[in-house]
Parts: sequence; structure tokens; C-alpha cells
Amino acid sequence: MGMNTWKICEEAYNEKLNKNYEGLFTQGNGYLSIRGSFEEDLSDATQNDRYWRMPANVTLEKQMHPKSKWGVFVPGVVGNHPILNEEMVNLPYILGLNIYIDDSRFDMEESDHDNYNRELDLKTGALSRRMKWLINGKKIELNFLRYISMARKNIIVQQLRVKSIESEVRLKIQSFIEGDVTTNGYNHFVVKEVSHNNGIIECYVKTDLEDEIIMMSRLLVTSGVKEEFQIIKDRVIHNGIINIRKGQEIVITKISVIKTNMDKETLGNLRITDVMGNPNFIDDAGLELKKAVDDVDKLYGEHVDEWKKRWDISDVEIQGDDRSQLAVRFSIYHLLRSVNEGNDRVAIDAKGAAGEAYFGHYFWDTEIYLLPFYLYTNPAAAKNLLMFRYNTLEAAKQNAKSYGYSGAKYPWESSISGKEQCSNWQYKDLEIHISADIVYAMWHYYRVTGDKDTLFNYFIDVMYEISRFWISRADIEKDGTYSIRGVMGPDEYLAFTNNNAFTNYMVKHALKRTLETLKMIKNEDEELYINKSLNLKISEEELEMMNRVMNKLNMPIDNDKHFIWQCEDFEGFVDLDFDKVWIDRSKPFGQFISQEKNYRSKALKQADVIGLLWLFNRDFDNEMVKNCMDYYEPITTHDSSLSYIIHSIVYSQMEDRDLAYEFFKRSLGIDLYDYGAAEGIHIANCGGIWQAVIYGFCGLNNLMVDEDIKLKPALPEGWERVKFRLLYNDRWYNITVSNDEVVLEYE
Amino acid sequence: MGMNTWKICEEAYNEKLNKNYEGLFTQGNGYLSIRGSFEEDLSDATQNDRYWRMPANVTLEKQMHPKSKWGVFVPGVVGNHPILNEEMVNLPYILGLNIYIDDSRFDMEESDHDNYNRELDLKTGALSRRMKWLINGKKIELNFLRYISMARKNIIVQQLRVKSIESEVRLKIQSFIEGDVTTNGYNHFVVKEVSHNNGIIECYVKTDLEDEIIMMSRLLVTSGVKEEFQIIKDRVIHNGIINIRKGQEIVITKISVIKTNMDKETLGNLRITDVMGNPNFIDDAGLELKKAVDDVDKLYGEHVDEWKKRWDISDVEIQGDDRSQLAVRFSIYHLLRSVNEGNDRVAIDAKGAAGEAYFGHYFWDTEIYLLPFYLYTNPAAAKNLLMFRYNTLEAAKQNAKSYGYSGAKYPWESSISGKEQCSNWQYKDLEIHISADIVYAMWHYYRVTGDKDTLFNYFIDVMYEISRFWISRADIEKDGTYSIRGVMGPDEYLAFTNNNAFTNYMVKHALKRTLETLKMIKNEDEELYINKSLNLKISEEELEMMNRVMNKLNMPIDNDKHFIWQCEDFEGFVDLDFDKVWIDRSKPFGQFISQEKNYRSKALKQADVIGLLWLFNRDFDNEMVKNCMDYYEPITTHDSSLSYIIHSIVYSQMEDRDLAYEFFKRSLGIDLYDYGAAEGIHIANCGGIWQAVIYGFCGLNNLMVDEDIKLKPALPEGWERVKFRLLYNDRWYNITVSNDEVVLEYE
Repeated sequence: MGMNTWKICEEAYNEKLNKNYEGLFTQGNGYLSIRGSFEEDLSDATQNDRYWRMPANVTLEKQMHPKSKWGVFVPGVVGNHPILNEEMVNLPYILGLNIYIDDSRFDMEESDHDNYNRELDLKTGALSRRMKWLINGKKIELNFLRYISMARKNIIVQQLRVKSIESEVRLKIQSFIEGDVTTNGYNHFVVKEVSHNNGIIECYVKTDLEDEIIMMSRLLVTSGVKEEFQIIKDRVIHNGIINIRKGQEIVITKISVIKTNMDKETLGNLRITDVMGNPNFIDDAGLELKKAVDDVDKLYGEHVDEWKKRWDISDVEIQGDDRSQLAVRFSIYHLLRSVNEGNDRVAIDAKGAAGEAYFGHYFWDTEIYLLPFYLYTNPAAAKNLLMFRYNTLEAAKQNAKSYGYSGAKYPWESSISGKEQCSNWQYKDLEIHISADIVYAMWHYYRVTGDKDTLFNYFIDVMYEISRFWISRADIEKDGTYSIRGVMGPDEYLAFTNNNAFTNYMVKHALKRTLETLKMIKNEDEELYINKSLNLKISEEELEMMNRVMNKLNMPIDNDKHFIWQCEDFEGFVDLDFDKVWIDRSKPFGQFISQEKNYRSKALKQADVIGLLWLFNRDFDNEMVKNCMDYYEPITTHDSSLSYIIHSIVYSQMEDRDLAYEFFKRSLGIDLYDYGAAEGIHIANCGGIWQAVIYGFCGLNNLMVDEDIKLKPALPEGWERVKFRLLYNDRWYNITVSNDEVVLEYE
Repeated sequence: MGMNTWKICEEAYNEKLNKNYEGLFTQGNGYLSIRGSFEEDLSDATQNDRYWRMPANVTLEKQMHPKSKWGVFVPGVVGNHPILNEEMVNLPYILGLNIYIDDSRFDMEESDHDNYNRELDLKTGALSRRMKWLINGKKIELNFLRYISMARKNIIVQQLRVKSIESEVRLKIQSFIEGDVTTNGYNHFVVKEVSHNNGIIECYVKTDLEDEIIMMSRLLVTSGVKEEFQIIKDRVIHNGIINIRKGQEIVITKISVIKTNMDKETLGNLRITDVMGNPNFIDDAGLELKKAVDDVDKLYGEHVDEWKKRWDISDVEIQGDDRSQLAVRFSIYHLLRSVNEGNDRVAIDAKGAAGEAYFGHYFWDTEIYLLPFYLYTNPAAAKNLLMFRYNTLEAAKQNAKSYGYSGAKYPWESSISGKEQCSNWQYKDLEIHISADIVYAMWHYYRVTGDKDTLFNYFIDVMYEISRFWISRADIEKDGTYSIRGVMGPDEYLAFTNNNAFTNYMVKHALKRTLETLKMIKNEDEELYINKSLNLKISEEELEMMNRVMNKLNMPIDNDKHFIWQCEDFEGFVDLDFDKVWIDRSKPFGQFISQEKNYRSKALKQADVIGLLWLFNRDFDNEMVKNCMDYYEPITTHDSSLSYIIHSIVYSQMEDRDLAYEFFKRSLGIDLYDYGAAEGIHIANCGGIWQAVIYGFCGLNNLMVDEDIKLKPALPEGWERVKFRLLYNDRWYNITVSNDEVVLEYE
């Protein structure tokens, strides 16, 4: 019997890994996300510290909160941090459940316990924990279970079963909501009100951006319980006191609701339009809680049904490698729980709403790493992720303007407003490929879904404004060619370079697809074309210019040598003796070199040219791929979690299945196996893992270019079979792949 | 009759220029510095706002406090700002004097007044203000006078004469000290205590770095006054109420003392050693105040005597151009009042302790712009400015180490600790020429004073550690030459360049003088050399390496074309159409371009290569100077106040006296004539103005190279004669220069 490939388990409590498990065990339903912290308070783990978090590289930062950080997030609820800008607010902790026996509080650090086990069931999104608590010679069995309803987006259900094995005990259950929670050391709440009312404890907060959040909890206990309510500072408490007989088990259920003034059905719209939203959201919360309490027996079933629907279309079954199977399901689980599929006003932040790192900001991860999974399994969700960019076009235009450029410059770090959130100028000013990546993703969406309507009516606006930006950003050279100078490519360890290959290639592609789409519209819907021309103020000169820049953009590609330079000036950077500098390879390279020296050295943070080889895999011949890989991989530090998985895919392209699997395994470690989830889930890597299986090992062809699905598998040793489903051009394909055969059925 | 060339006057109050005059009228004695704010409160000019000041370019920042910002500074008293790091703390306002007639308070904005005049007497450092106040049909003459004693460094004297011209009035004089003052929007006081005691009002504050400051004031009034004391929040008030008869003038004197726990005779030592300093500084302050009160009739005389001593050796007399004369005296005044001549633990900050901008940080200004004035008039002060660097050597070594380099990397922005204070990585990481500039200045000091003792015993330590830094910072090229890559030169509008000519030339010079000095020590004092070898761990390999880097450092100089490239990669930056971008030349160029575009364009902020032509004026032939000037000046924006004056000097070198004078006049405008002093005095420009007269127009030869003083004047049209004194190699020279003759007398 192999391992259970649906469950992530923690078999012993370890203070040093607790934060990692908080990240791994994050639960959610797209609307709401909660880290896997314990229900009860933990010794020496303050949650309201005040400090100045600077926007440093999260890889190199000294960790605050070494042991535990709660995280209750409604992505879209952002506050205004003076340095970090709009950041996703860590909301009051609603899961609170302390347990007392004879006035001793249960505490994971202080209390004796054995038979500990905690596990997250990926299939149902339910998190359970059990242990025996040894207190004053008594033995108490504790069983926790909780889930965030996938069926009712505002509802959280917790269950606690307490059994006294050997004696009668006096039990106090303390349910609480704690309002005094800071986000990255900052208090975003200008109003905090805790109260209790008719057996319900409530916490209302108002953020510094005037978002309002209401939380309510109701404790359901058997009769005979003595109930008390308390307010201590910003914590509202509901105590239930009961005697348990020897051998008796009592069951406590806590049902909670979270709503914000921005909710309609789900968090629906931009702050600015949503003052209209729902003035009675507090009343609504009360009604919804009441309904959930009434329906208490149905809640789990309907929740599991919803998860089942998702797994039915999303699961990737790997036969012959349980370790990979579990990690792939783990990745898909987080992809499923972090997308607010019906909402086109929020996207998915870099940590998948599973931590405070990166401040809830949105990066190119969405377009390049995350999109394919949704595109092939839930195109409506994929569309909304891209519609988020459409909905923030105005902010991107303002951003371009603030730099003196035309069109739309999308922010390196976005938030719900679509304004630039990045506090480090070198990224926000120079890492501009994001604005071409978006066009790539929109074209990708169109190619896989065939949804011309969205392309013609919405995406083209974004594409045109982005192309307009690029022609104003490119500089003409004396020989009539064009250059893009002063940029940072995906490799963030070179800050200031000229004609970065990745960026320029993406820009060329963006211009090409924009012109192509316009031509399609013109051919297929002349009236629409006229409207677009008017609305976008399309001019012949501009189209001409887009065409010229597309054709004459300099590309540091040496066709004779079959080699792509990362940038035109790459050779001018300094060679490093890696063995001398990187003395401990178990730690990131960046810890052993100053940013200053790094910025002038040939040491890559992550795939740059290699990314190009992956995204445009049909454009480069095998020799070029090999030359680039041979040159760049040894000087790539993979300090970014975005790096391994691309290497895995490109090694698959090269049919080097050993190296492809090697890098795949390293990717699986990033969150799951190497304890990297303390500050949140590397959600882009999750999306990448899906791609590495589907594109890499199973060899799905590039449908950006091809018409029909084809697969050319090169499964790692030991993998017998991979089964999954894909939705392509409105048709579901059931695919089974082994090294010997590909079975493609469609419905 | 020409203008008074010793007085800066304000003839009418103008709300928009008030802050500028606060800067221009800054008084001080090196230990203490106070902006020229009014004694009384001003409407709508809060002094305790809280906000987040970011370390943006001060040229481009939107001004806070549009009308008035008090400034009471004891340079060396710094607080710990979470973003700006150590910043000079704006201390409680000690000059407070409100005036009431019949319960109406005098206010420059609200009260009717005429016959207004305010003037700063540069000769005595006394600031006076007079006006007639028209109140309820009454006419009151007000005459203010104040000075910070140059004889008693802790004492401030204020005098107010009030005369009622036409009627009897009831006058209330309200002396106050206000403790609620923020610095750049931040409160640095963890303790604030105001009190009154035996007729003295007191304010004690303790900063977030545990510096303690005591302020005491005593009001001396004629008898018959009714006295009252009040405390309102952090303000302590001493009211004196008196009836004035028609025609009667009463005289009020306010004497104040400021002391800190770091004072010995003057602010003497680093915080860390000074807990030993003076535990009774509060008692001492009381005694010193009492003594000043007892000596009240002597105070002004002894103060003026001290100023006279300074002017006797420092004045530069210009006959034939009163406007320049006044501006040159204005510059010298600020140079005299901002140097704490007996103290080697503080230096002179970028705003001459006349404002909060630049946070009281020390830059290369000291070594390159300010030093020559002190060097030739007050070498003890010059020595202390350089000993400040010696005293912070340990911090510079730590700084180098933090980057992974050997030796000492001096901070781009220093404060009393000597640690890097700059919050922008591109400056602190890349603008590294500072560490070579210091060697230049030390050599300069040695050459002008002949003080071998200091060179051998102290400066060599700094020079050696700096040279050690440079050889670890330089990269070897394939051809065996060395390069310094990834630097920002003095031109801060190109952030990331290779082999910046200014930097590399300075580095070559630093290595040369270090090796030369070591050779001198070896020849002249073998025992000392052995000691130094041991202490500094000098090795032959290192000396060899210094020699090699010195000889083989790449220099982007084209000897055929007689041209110096600003950096090796200068041609790769983008050409700008200045007329298109810089649409309003009355504003800084930087306001019309994003930093991003600026960093990749050929637009200079300030002299870079041109600075080299000035500092090493004997190394470059006329053709090279001309070619460089012709190429760079048109693409130089002079957005930095450090730029004009170097251009003036180099135009003098080129014997183009019209352009030299043109740029000189622009420099005079920076603070004095063009209202630029709102945020403080551009003290480097003051030092530059002195140099432009002495080196530029009067043509003093380069005594870094020559042995004997020689002058080759090229005075601007209209300048009949310039007279000044210089101390060179311990001998005072009285110099009179005209276009026809040079008279050099020595004592």
C-alpha cells in the first residue's frame, strides 16, 4: 500500500515548521482564504506586532513571526500601507477556539499531548487535527475539523469533538474573534468593534480604505452548557462551560460568516463603484449565518459536492509515482481554492492568499504560470483573470502617462485598483515585460477557447493600448532599427540592460498579435472595426509604426552560433567564481552576494532566455535550445521559485527526461517537501507544476500555433500512466498517456 | 551710494517667500543653528504635522510646510527615522515670543502693519526686524533683534523693543518654548517635559536615540511687570503683562541656553562614549544661563568680537560688483556659522543645518566643495572635517564588509555614526566615488598645510583602507586591465554605468597618493612604518595590487580625439530632444522626465567629466577641456546645485570670462537671489562660490601640484579688484588681484 495521494499530513508538532504548515494547510473557496493556524492561541506567537516592513526581497528577508502568523483574507480587501501601498489586509481571526480543562488552557507548546495528527484532505478541502491531551492526570481526546464552504462562499464551519477518556472533567470551550491583528506589522483598521448579541459574537472592522467587514460566529453546543460572553480589548469571547462524564464525547460546532460592504454575490466590483453594493451587508450576514445554522446538517455534503465537481474536471492522475501524484494534487488543490472564478475584479496574488508576503500583489505569474491550468479546465475563470486586466486598463494608461509614454503600461505589481504597487523602482520602472506577457496570455486564451467575441470586444482594447505603449517606449537607432534600453528581464539579478531577448521577443509577439487581431476584426466585422478605430483612436501612422517596430526590433540572437544572448550587453557583465561565492548551496545564492555585486555579475536569478525557449518552443531549433541551456543553466541560481519548473519543461522539450524530472522534483519541494510555505504558497509554481506534467512530460503541443491536440509523451522513469482532462475549443478531451501510447477521447 | 554689501534684507513680508527667508536668515555658531523663523506664532503654519517623508529627490518633491518650518538644530543630535535612518532632529522651538495688545495677538499674516524691514547683518550674525503694528487704532513700534552667541556656544540672546506711539496700551509679552515639533513629519521625542522654575521656563526632551536636550529661557523685563506661567500641552509659557505709556519704549530681553548630554565644552564625542560626558548637563545649563544673565551687558560685545576675528581672516572683498560682493559674503557667512570648528565628530550637512532636507546627512560636498575655504582660512576646522572621516573609519570598514569587499567603503550619506544613511540603493551602492574623494581631500589638506604629522599618523589609515577597498572592487578584464563596473558617477542621471571617468580617475589618484604617502613614511620614519604595517596589516601583495590597479585601470579617454567619455558605455545611452522634453526651463529638467527615461538618456544632472577638468586641471590640455565642455554642457541640465559653479571655474580655466561670470551669477541665485533657500542653504554651493572667486576669477594655482602660490586673474567685467587672505603652509598671504596686477604680501 502506497501513501495516501489525497492527504497532506503533519505527524508531529514542530515549532520550527508550524508556519510552513499554516501555509500548506491554507483553506479557501476563492472568495475567502484562511491559513492553517491552530484554532487556539499559541504561546509566544503575537499577532499584532507593529513594525516597519520594507519592500525587500522576500527570499532574503529575516522572518518576522517565526512561529505563527494567522491569515484571514478576502482578496480584494486591501489597505493603504504607507510604504507597501495597497496590501491585502489580514482580517480579524475568526477561527478562535480555546479549550480549558479545570482552568488550564490547551496550548500546542505548553500542554502535554500525544497521538498527534493533522491532515488536509485535498479532495474535500477539510482540515482535521486530533490528539490526546494529558492534563492533571486526565486524558482528553480532541478532534478538530474545519472547512470553508465551497458551496456558500461566506460560511466557515468548524467542529470540535472532546472526549474525556478516564474521568469526569469540567470543560470550557472558548470561541473568539480577535480584532487586534496587524498585516506586515501595520494596523489597517480605523474602526474595530466587537460585540455579542443573541448568542452571536461579532466583529466589525473598517479599513483605512473604508472597506467594512463584518464577522459573526455562533457556537452550537449540546444543552446543559453554561454560556458566558466577554469582551477583552478587541477580542469577543463566547464561553461554554460543561461537565463531561467519563467516556462521554461532546460535539461543538462553530459556524461563522464573513461579509464585506463590497459583497454582492461574491466580492464583485471595484471599491469605487461598490458603495452602491450592499448597504445591508451586516443584516445579510446575520441572515446568512442563521440560514447556515438551520441547514447545519446539509453543509458538509453540499461543500464536498462542490469540490467533487472541481476535481472531476481538474484531477491529474499519475500512476507509478505517489510522491509526484500527491504534490500535483496539492498544486491543483491550491489552484482551485485560490481562484475567485466568478469575479473579474480580483486576480490571484503571488502567495495564493496564503500569507502576507508580497502583500497580496498580482504579478506576471497570472498570465504566464497560472493561466494554462484554468484555460484548459475552467475557461470562465481564465477569462476573468484576463478581464481583470481589461478592467484595470484605465490605470495602466495613467501609469504609461506618468512615465511620459502613450498607451498602457501595466504595473509590475498590481492590486485591485490596477495602479502600480511596487515600491522598488528598479522593478516597477524596468521590469516591463509584463505588458507584453498580457498580450501573450490573451492570445493564448483566444487560441485555446476560440472565444473571438471576448478577443474582439474586450482584449483588443488592452492589446492595442499595450502596443501603443511599446512603440512609444522603443528607441530608434541610427541604422533605423529599434531598441528597448534600460530594462530588467525576468532575470531580476541584472537590473539595467539593453535589448533583453525575452522582453523584445514578447514585444514583437504582442505587436504581431495586435495587428493580426485588428485585421481579423476588419475582415469579419467592419462595423466593429469602425467603432474600435474611433474608440481607440487608431491611426494609420500608428499601425505603420507598430509594424515597423515589430519588424525592426533588435534581438540579441546569434543565428550563426545558434545562441540567444540574454541581452545585448550581457558579455559586459562580470564573470563569477560560483564556488567561491556560493559557499552553502542549501541557501539562496542571493544571501552570499550584495545586490550591488549581483547587479553587475553574470549570475541569473531565474530562467530568462530559457523562458523564451518554453513560451515560443516552436520558434527555436534544437541546437539553439541546447546551446542556451548549456550556457545559462550553470550560471542560474534558481533563487526564484519560478525557475526550476521552466527548466523542467525545457529539458522535457530536449527529451532529457532525467534532468526534466530532476527539476520537476525540485519544484515539488518548493512548498510541499522542502518546507517553503511559511509565508504562503508559491502559487505560480503550482501552475508551473501542472504545465510541467501536461506540456513537459505528457508533451502537449503548443496550441498557440497548432490547430489540433497532439501529445508526445516522455514520462519520467517509473511513471506508468498519466490521466487528465482538457477543455479545448469547447470540447472535453479525456487523455491517457503512457510512454507507449496516447489515448485521446473526446466527449 | 551702492547697496549695503553686508546685509541681507527683506523689505516686505511675502507668505510665499517666508520659508526662503527662514533659510537665508539662518543663524548659528557651529554648535547650534536656528532658522530665521519669526519669534511669534504664524497662522496656518503647523510645526508638528505627522507624515511619511520618503527619501525622494528633494528637487522634485512636493513641499510640505509651504509657509514656515522652524528649525532648531544641534548638529550631532540625530534621531532614528524608520525610513530616512539617522536624521538631524529638529529640536523644540526656543525663540518663542508672542505679543498681545488688548488680547489681540500680533501675527504677520493677520495683523495690519507697515514700515516692515528685516535684515541679517552678515558682519555680526545678528537678525533684526522692525515694523509698525496698527491695532485697534493704535500704532505700536516693534523692534526685534537676536543672535546666537559666537562667544558662548550654548547661549541665544533675543531683544524686543516695544513702543506705543500714540496711546497708552496694555501689553502682554509671551515667551515660550514649544516641544511639539516634528522632523520631516516624524516625532523623535520619546520624552518631552516642560516646566517652569524660579522664573525660568524649561523644556527637556529625550530622543529615540536617547540623546537628552535641555533648553531654558529667562525673560528680563523692566519692573512693574505682572508675570504668569502657563503650560499648554508641550508648550511652556512665561507671560509678562505691563502697561506702556504713550511714547514709552520698553525693552524685553530673552536669554536662552541649550545643552545636551553630549556636551563637554562643545558637542564633543560620539554618542556611545558620551554617556560619560556630562551627567550634570542640566545643572550646567542653569549655571550657564545664570552667568549669561549676570553678564547681559557684555554678551553682544564679545559675540561681535568673535565674528570680527573670523571676518578678518575670511572676508573676500570685491570692488566693482556689489551684487557679487554681497553674495560672496553671504556664502562666507554661512560657511562660518555652519562649521563646528573644534569638533571632529560632526561634519557639515548638505543644507548647512538650515533645514530638514537631506536629513542632516553628510555627502562628498565636504571634501570637494567645502574643504578649500576652511583649508586656506582655518586649517584646524578643515582638519576636523577630515578627522571626522578618520573617526568613522570603523563604520566604513563594516560597510565594505557588508558588501563583501575589503577595506573601507565610505557611505554615500553619512551621519555621526559613520554608517550608511542613504535609503536609495542606487546612490548608496553605486555612487562610490566618495571613497576616492576623501583621499583627494586628505592629500589636499596635506599639500596646503604641510601637516605631515596628521597625514602620517591618521589620514594614511583611511587612505590605505580606502585603497584596499578599491582593489577589491575593481574587476580584472581578460586583457589584464581593470574596470570598475556598475557605478553612478557624480552625474546622478545615469545610474548604472561602466568605468565612469570621474570615479576611475579619482581612484587612480587615491591609489597613487596612498602609495606615495607610504613611501614617504618609510623613508622618513621607519619605526612608524613598521607600526603602520602591523596595524594596517600591509602586505607586499596588496601594495603590488594597488600599483597594478593604479596603472591598469581603464579610463574612457580618447587621446586622439582629445576627449573624455563620461563612461565607457556613454554612447549606448539615448539621445534626447531637449526642446521637446524640457518645455519650461525655469523648472528642473527632472520634472519633465521620468527617472526611468532619464536613467537611459544622455541628459546630465550635473558636472561629471567637467568636475575632473577642474579637480585635476593640470592634467588635461586646452583642447581636451574645450572638447569636453562643448560636448557635455549642452546636455547638462544643472538640476543639481553643485553644477553651475564647477562650470564657472572651468570656463575661467578656459579664459572665457563671460561664460564663467554667467555661471557664477547663476550660482549666486541658487540660495540668495532666486529664492532657493526654503529647505536650507546649499552650503556646497557656498564653498563653490568661494572657490570660483579664488581659483576661477583670481586664478589661484593648483597647490595640489605646485609649490608656490601663483595667481593668474581673469576677473569679470566691472570687477576692479579682489582682496582676500590665504593661509598656505603656515603663512598668511594678503592678496590683492586686479586684471592688471597681482599683489601678494605675506606676513
